[in-house]
Amino acid sequence: FRNPVHMVTMGQTRSESVNPDLANERQTASFSVEKLTAWLDGGAERTRLRRAVVDAIESDPVFSRENQYFQSQNERYEAAVRKAVHLQKKMHEMGWSEDGPEFKYIYRAVAGDVAFLLHRIFMRSISMLGSDEQVAKWIPLASQYQLIGSYAQTELGHGTYLQGLETTAVFDVTTQEFILNTPKISAMKWWPGDMGRSATHTVVFAQLYIHGKCYGIHPFIVQIRSLQDHSLCPGIIAGDIGPKMNFEHIDNGYLMLQSVRVPRENMLNKFCEVQPDGTYVRRGSQKINYFTMTSVRISLISGEAIPPLMKACTIAIRYSAVRRQSKLKPGEQEAKILDYQTQQEKLLPQLAAAYAFHFIDDYLQELFDRGYREIQRKNFDTLPELHALSSGFKALVTQYCTSGVEICLRACGGHGYSLLSGLPSLYTKIIASCIYEGENTVLLLQTARFLIKCFMAASTGQSVPPSVTYLAAAKPGKCPAKNKLDFLRPDIYTEAYQHAAVRSVWRTGSTAAKLQDLIQSGVKKHDAWNRCTVQLVQAAKAHCHYITVKNFAETVEKIETKGGIQRIMKHLCDLFALHGIFSNTGVFLHDGYISGEQMDMVTASYLDLLAIIRKDAVPLVDAFDFTDKSLNSALGSYDGQVYQRLYEWAQKSPTNKQISPAYGKYLKPLLHNRLSKL
Amino acid sequence: FRNPVHMVTMGQTRSESVNPDLANERQTASFSVEKLTAWLDGGAERTRLRRAVVDAIESDPVFSRENQYFQSQNERYEAAVRKAVHLQKKMHEMGWSEDGPEFKYIYRAVAGDVAFLLHRIFMRSISMLGSDEQVAKWIPLASQYQLIGSYAQTELGHGTYLQGLETTAVFDVTTQEFILNTPKISAMKWWPGDMGRSATHTVVFAQLYIHGKCYGIHPFIVQIRSLQDHSLCPGIIAGDIGPKMNFEHIDNGYLMLQSVRVPRENMLNKFCEVQPDGTYVRRGSQKINYFTMTSVRISLISGEAIPPLMKACTIAIRYSAVRRQSKLKPGEQEAKILDYQTQQEKLLPQLAAAYAFHFIDDYLQELFDRGYREIQRKNFDTLPELHALSSGFKALVTQYCTSGVEICLRACGGHGYSLLSGLPSLYTKIIASCIYEGENTVLLLQTARFLIKCFMAASTGQSVPPSVTYLAAAKPGKCPAKNKLDFLRPDIYTEAYQHAAVRSVWRTGSTAAKLQDLIQSGVKKHDAWNRCTVQLVQAAKAHCHYITVKNFAETVEKIETKGGIQRIMKHLCDLFALHGIFSNTGVFLHDGYISGEQMDMVTASYLDLLAIIRKDAVPLVDAFDFTDKSLNSALGSYDGQVYQRLYEWAQKSPTNKQISPAYGKYLKPLLHNRLSKL
Repeated sequence: FRNPVHMVTMGQTRSESVNPDLANERQTASFSVEKLTAWLDGGAERTRLRRAVVDAIESDPVFSRENQYFQSQNERYEAAVRKAVHLQKKMHEMGWSEDGPEFKYIYRAVAGDVAFLLHRIFMRSISMLGSDEQVAKWIPLASQYQLIGSYAQTELGHGTYLQGLETTAVFDVTTQEFILNTPKISAMKWWPGDMGRSATHTVVFAQLYIHGKCYGIHPFIVQIRSLQDHSLCPGIIAGDIGPKMNFEHIDNGYLMLQSVRVPRENMLNKFCEVQPDGTYVRRGSQKINYFTMTSVRISLISGEAIPPLMKACTIAIRYSAVRRQSKLKPGEQEAKILDYQTQQEKLLPQLAAAYAFHFIDDYLQELFDRGYREIQRKNFDTLPELHALSSGFKALVTQYCTSGVEICLRACGGHGYSLLSGLPSLYTKIIASCIYEGENTVLLLQTARFLIKCFMAASTGQSVPPSVTYLAAAKPGKCPAKNKLDFLRPDIYTEAYQHAAVRSVWRTGSTAAKLQDLIQSGVKKHDAWNRCTVQLVQAAKAHCHYITVKNFAETVEKIETKGGIQRIMKHLCDLFALHGIFSNTGVFLHDGYISGEQMDMVTASYLDLLAIIRKDAVPLVDAFDFTDKSLNSALGSYDGQVYQRLYEWAQKSPTNKQISPAYGKYLKPLLHNRLSKL
Repeated sequence: FRNPVHMVTMGQTRSESVNPDLANERQTASFSVEKLTAWLDGGAERTRLRRAVVDAIESDPVFSRENQYFQSQNERYEAAVRKAVHLQKKMHEMGWSEDGPEFKYIYRAVAGDVAFLLHRIFMRSISMLGSDEQVAKWIPLASQYQLIGSYAQTELGHGTYLQGLETTAVFDVTTQEFILNTPKISAMKWWPGDMGRSATHTVVFAQLYIHGKCYGIHPFIVQIRSLQDHSLCPGIIAGDIGPKMNFEHIDNGYLMLQSVRVPRENMLNKFCEVQPDGTYVRRGSQKINYFTMTSVRISLISGEAIPPLMKACTIAIRYSAVRRQSKLKPGEQEAKILDYQTQQEKLLPQLAAAYAFHFIDDYLQELFDRGYREIQRKNFDTLPELHALSSGFKALVTQYCTSGVEICLRACGGHGYSLLSGLPSLYTKIIASCIYEGENTVLLLQTARFLIKCFMAASTGQSVPPSVTYLAAAKPGKCPAKNKLDFLRPDIYTEAYQHAAVRSVWRTGSTAAKLQDLIQSGVKKHDAWNRCTVQLVQAAKAHCHYITVKNFAETVEKIETKGGIQRIMKHLCDLFALHGIFSNTGVFLHDGYISGEQMDMVTASYLDLLAIIRKDAVPLVDAFDFTDKSLNSALGSYDGQVYQRLYEWAQKSPTNKQISPAYGKYLKPLLHNRLSKL
């Protein structure tokens, strides 16, 4: 098997089977695709490693995703378990480890399509929340797969608001056990992955009661299935929650506990312990827990949100360079749909956003690494900023990528709607990222709360974290741009975003402050906050959008790689920034910072940029370097043979593999009854 | 079976099983739900008829949609055929006819989930395009189901741009036949419904060639499967195109033609004929064809776009009144999520839009009926306006409803993501409406072309159709609002929308004109047009948005029904209008028509309205009068017992009906291998 992407990016000759419409797009690239790929990967050595891992996975037939679009939920689950088990073997063979440099490439290659992801969360929660003895007991069992773990937090009635969980764990001092119960239907655990059919154990989060007093939510290790025959343990009712919009391969489960007893040692007790006599002891700081959430949200951005957008752009842009429809000029050949301004305006901003978020991911990762070093020195000062940024960016990026994937899907017309395009499954999967690991609106309000707090502090001259110092430093003014070219100056547009963010925070800050005044006159404090939340969400988005633009501009500034990279990245940065202004003109016009005339200049520059970037659109998606197997798309393959592939793939569909019983049962009697009457 | 919706709306006592959180919402309704329902239906008599039809369908187990979320594509298809065949019988039994008043209610009741919808298009195309003899021959056969028809227009390589179709039909004067061919893979028919597995006949659109000359696209009746045993006819290659994002019940198909011969009489020849010697004769006006497209687009708005949005609002709003999460005030019970401003801001504008579009549908229907009367008098003058409005509104409404359904889905958090919520399937289905029957961007550009033409005509004093006279009449000015209450005046906000639409058309009109000037200096005319298209699309949307607001305000003005209907409809109209301004502030701020200070008033009034309409939110969705069976949602049922229903429905999932082979094959060996090593 020869991978055409690598053939070309490695400088070999193009395969003759590439659609000429796509081949032409590559001949005119203004930059070196291979250099851009290496720069995105963080160096040519990492590119080499990534390709080696991806090749090893994709050349192994057990990991094939070829029939994925034809499989039932049961088949998808079975395949995911098969892959997960095989992956253990593969990793052993290849000498890969879970904390090695290969791991993120493995995940990229299997496209998340394996079971036991919650088993990893199970292990992480024990490592984070368990005592040394608990870690020593459970981690070896789990890492050797002597048990399969899950993580039972969410309930039917409660998700993001953890304090509201209703499962109970009552300490029985006579037997030294906790008795776990699901007191009502809304308390049933619901959604945990790997729990519906696979897990033997799980970490259950429950309200701890000792001598009738509630001590809040605590984690307990509970065995739910027999290690011998996988039957449910006594007092356990568990199963699969049924069909979902995607994630058919995961057995999201439910769990009801009926007086299930676990020994005292099964409460994870790094931070608090119940002593034999029922005395409750708290120890150490739980602040580190926030750090875990932060780390999960940041890894979600790079693992779950950005790659689907990059894939969707790859598919839609390659297809748009191959699809010809209608004529731009009478008498000429039909035009590539990528040549229509409306199509460019759909796709190219998504492409620019994919790059923008790739760089924000680097920014967050760096911030996180710095924070981690501080925390190891027991300095928790960076936590609030890290928490606010990871929450805000998780929300902004997942929201933006979801809508970007949808735009790509719709931009491919009818064929985008076929599962064989790969786009529907990218969409139905990424949309879930707006909900899990913290619902986006809730997260943005957490960011907003941090911003308002910093704004208030900055107003009174107190020092604030680096990412928000601008809230105090900015002064009112007008945008100094004099013509459309001025809007291609990063200082001009970054300043505009900063102004908009300050104004948005300041306005809601002052509204919140005003409402706080009202509290004196009878409006309740929480009412006041609730009445500002729509605008607070806007403020949080404006802040994150500003940082994204600023970071993109700074990244471009620092590029040292040759090969035309800086020039094209500058265009993309301009496009990302101007698209944001063009799509939210009101934010910039409201106080006259940008005038109506200036906004017309923005529009003109923005539309000009579309035509410029269009020329490099295909090379820019090629640089993401997704293999055909990882795209799994009849529309997006490197060779652009879309119609042939749609036709060939459709042949494999189960709808073409059997005569439907509908003919014998219904169609034949219908047609023949009438025929017999003739 | 007693339907709880009817129990209540008919004034009987509430069932005791209704969740008290939902029951409370209904006790405080500010208006009569039953009166609103009747008014929406167009009178109490129609409500009665609708309920009778829906009851007859839903009480028949053949039409059950109970297991729909668990079925494979093959099972969905089989069920759709079963329902379609049974529906014929049912209609006969009940005395319903296809052109009777019951028909639209039947469609509502089966939720589009039947086969043979393309059979109806097959018949309509023969009726519209066929000669009297052709109609006399084919329509009885089709209506008696002596054949099953399809409609083969779209090809792999061409959709909206019909002139580009590549299938050929060459007239053979010696045999008096047309020879149909698929000359290349992109010419393969692709997507036609009912064609993959059901149809025996289809109308094929092909480029007609006579003596080597091409006469453009013409329709031909072609038999594709044997009436005796359903085998493919000679020269026919056909099958199913495979899995899609939804519409699994429809056998969208492909068709390749290899020198398939049909007699000369099989070309539909109402408007043109090939005579035996090969002479091509054109007769009559084809303008009526535009009228058909217009009629399809208008019926699509009421049949496919608005009901899913209404259903999604019903599900999401009922659920939000039952779901409690986190606390608004410390020490109190957890709050209903509908009490959070951010949740209101997600859902209530969608509710207002559902009403707005219901009234636009009435407006378009009336315009259409008037146009139809004119056309019967051979007056085609209304056609351009009707075409422009139906195109623009098809695009605006499908786009808006799609995004509304998505917002509802996401507003339900994790449970919205379960298929059992009913929301994913509403979304995956409605998104297709943005593409079929004319891709939305293409349609908006047709509307824009009409607007620019009218704008140019109006500028030179020529008369223009009624819906666009405002383009000439409007004068520049400033919004006269002085405080936030002024923005609740329909004259104030309607004027603002009108101003924005005029400015948008005027600006692109002038840009287009300016570019036309440029043509003199070398820019090509079609380039010039292409460079304006992003803004032309905005102009078309602004026009349709203005008409929607104006029509809503006029509808409210004219309400005579008592029972508090006018008051609540006025609130919804205000909300729809202010939401549009709040979400597109730049459009109104750009030229200073609305000032920054005034925009703050808009925001204040808009946020106030959310709290007001929230009180009636549940009664407002109850008034849509969807039965539990038609919602098919564990979250949206009338009784609000969401957790119980999620649990019960999950039990029925095939994922819980069998032990997965994955245990024996993979999990057991994994767990036991390790255990044996202990």
